[in-house]
Amino acid sequence: MAENQTVRFGIIGCAGIARKVARAIKIAPNSTLYAIASRSIEKAQKFAGNNGLSGTVKTYGSYDQLLDDPCVDAVYMPLPTSLHLHWAVLAAQKKKHLLLEKPTALDVGELDQIVEACESNGVQFMDGSMWLHHPRTAKLKKFISESEHFGQIDIIRSTSTMSVTQEFRESNIRVKPDLDALGALGDLGWYCIGAILWAKDYKLPTVVNALPDVTKNSAGVILSCTASFHWEPLDETVATIHCSFLSHTSMDLAISGCNGSLHCNDYIIPYQEKSASFDFTSGATFVELHIGWNVRPEEVRVISEQPQEALMVEEFARLVKGIMKSGHRPESKWPKISRNTQVVLDAVKKSIDLGCKPVRL
Amino acid sequence: MAENQTVRFGIIGCAGIARKVARAIKIAPNSTLYAIASRSIEKAQKFAGNNGLSGTVKTYGSYDQLLDDPCVDAVYMPLPTSLHLHWAVLAAQKKKHLLLEKPTALDVGELDQIVEACESNGVQFMDGSMWLHHPRTAKLKKFISESEHFGQIDIIRSTSTMSVTQEFRESNIRVKPDLDALGALGDLGWYCIGAILWAKDYKLPTVVNALPDVTKNSAGVILSCTASFHWEPLDETVATIHCSFLSHTSMDLAISGCNGSLHCNDYIIPYQEKSASFDFTSGATFVELHIGWNVRPEEVRVISEQPQEALMVEEFARLVKGIMKSGHRPESKWPKISRNTQVVLDAVKKSIDLGCKPVRL
Repeated sequence: MAENQTVRFGIIGCAGIARKVARAIKIAPNSTLYAIASRSIEKAQKFAGNNGLSGTVKTYGSYDQLLDDPCVDAVYMPLPTSLHLHWAVLAAQKKKHLLLEKPTALDVGELDQIVEACESNGVQFMDGSMWLHHPRTAKLKKFISESEHFGQIDIIRSTSTMSVTQEFRESNIRVKPDLDALGALGDLGWYCIGAILWAKDYKLPTVVNALPDVTKNSAGVILSCTASFHWEPLDETVATIHCSFLSHTSMDLAISGCNGSLHCNDYIIPYQEKSASFDFTSGATFVELHIGWNVRPEEVRVISEQPQEALMVEEFARLVKGIMKSGHRPESKWPKISRNTQVVLDAVKKSIDLGCKPVRL
Repeated sequence: MAENQTVRFGIIGCAGIARKVARAIKIAPNSTLYAIASRSIEKAQKFAGNNGLSGTVKTYGSYDQLLDDPCVDAVYMPLPTSLHLHWAVLAAQKKKHLLLEKPTALDVGELDQIVEACESNGVQFMDGSMWLHHPRTAKLKKFISESEHFGQIDIIRSTSTMSVTQEFRESNIRVKPDLDALGALGDLGWYCIGAILWAKDYKLPTVVNALPDVTKNSAGVILSCTASFHWEPLDETVATIHCSFLSHTSMDLAISGCNGSLHCNDYIIPYQEKSASFDFTSGATFVELHIGWNVRPEEVRVISEQPQEALMVEEFARLVKGIMKSGHRPESKWPKISRNTQVVLDAVKKSIDLGCKPVRL
């Protein structure tokens, strides 16, 4: 691979999210969209046509064909979760670097097989959590890391909710037991859990407790749930998540420390692409007679030249190039982040399955 | 009492909050601050002096003396919670209308005695939750009541936190078992619980569940706690509270319904007196390719000619005048609000005492 050569991506599966990532691959300077595979050639061609890719990308009518193409360096895989184990392991065995859509697997046992396959084949693994790549996220992290302005974290609250149709609740891929058996917990809760672990520097909670407001569809797939996380006995942080297909669109991240607090209400997908913000207060107290505050929330705005998904692709491709061109080892940070997220997600699921009993990690 | 006569208030106890309410009584057009009582005449005189009240208010060196003054129509009582039962009942028996600081009592059994004394003596009862009287609160209520813009409530999250000194944690009145045995739950959690009940039109939850992150001081008084509320089986709302003396100042109220959501991060004490705001979104979804939102939060700003505590005093005095002048019956809404809040607060306390087991109401 020459210095100026870009990483050639193949997309396996034509889910809605693939359109967004196809665009991101086009935007990222070190990446090229090389091929698309669907279960039928017609679907792949239709996807190419609908996204202005006809003539510029190869189309395949099977995932195997794409994985057998030696020109494909890396694979973006937005398949239903139940298909991840098979296709992700196969992709790794075919030496394709793997950008895997979240939730990464049905459970951590499956994810471990995927990550092991990536490791033993020397390919990069990363999950598709785009928000981690937004420059605002780095700014948020900087803010909560400053002991003077923020201090030890007291509480983290994160939500990821959206309102779906009655039909979606019963029959969409994302709530079908044989396709995305984790339902709202996998699709939306992944972000809530990820945000909490991110805030806690990926320190796993010791206790995970689903709260008794679980809603499932007729097939038993989670449509809505809430959980709390605890880092007993020494760490006093408490965190709550709420993910739901039954609520208005929200993606709130609120964190309070002993010296400051912040609110970000679009942490997963910023309201707009080019700039994103969050509010913080630090050193807040009341004025004389407690008739007001000494400070008001300050808005921090962060410009992003590129969409967060393009930054994700760029970072992934940078690592891939490092491996392919310079013989670097794959970056282990990304599979670790995914694994901890999956471990906590499994614990929430287990707590729900136990009738909302606490689960110790 | 003549048409233009104002309600004459006596204040029993010279707590810090009494200064704020003394000012509010001065501001409210239908109220006059008539007398102040402390346990010593020196303290009462000092309070009067420090607050520019010397010569304009009577000062008493005992609570009994103030309650025996026939010119006192109504009493504002910011005493430590453990003293409420005795002095509030006595005030009612002396036919004084009662504006009682929160938490209203150590438990609902005590509160019932106080409310019963008020009822049998025909005097008005109201607790000192000022935020309920801010015009913003009415605006918030209107917003969450609109089914088209908001819809059924999915989740309510409320916090009330402040950071106190190590000395406060061990020895302040608000965390002394013989004075304010309810600690942060009584002082701050009262608001969180009140906000949730307010949002739910005072419908009591069926299950109250303290989460296992309770922190107590060496005397066993709660410094920090978290709880969830559920309205099983038919009502899918979930609510969480977090109150803490160990965290940065916060007072967040976030409510999501199926069609809209709102955020108010200064719901208990607005950032400034004259105007207050909240943010809402309604009908939010993602734009094409999910690269942004179709709407952004809209700020609703509400002007308040008077501070919320003056509006509270004015409303209380209006009811008192109606009773004294027109022979109205006391308004039963206010003791009911207090009672429901106290019932839920008791349940959180019980859940904590049971080792964070769910409590059914």
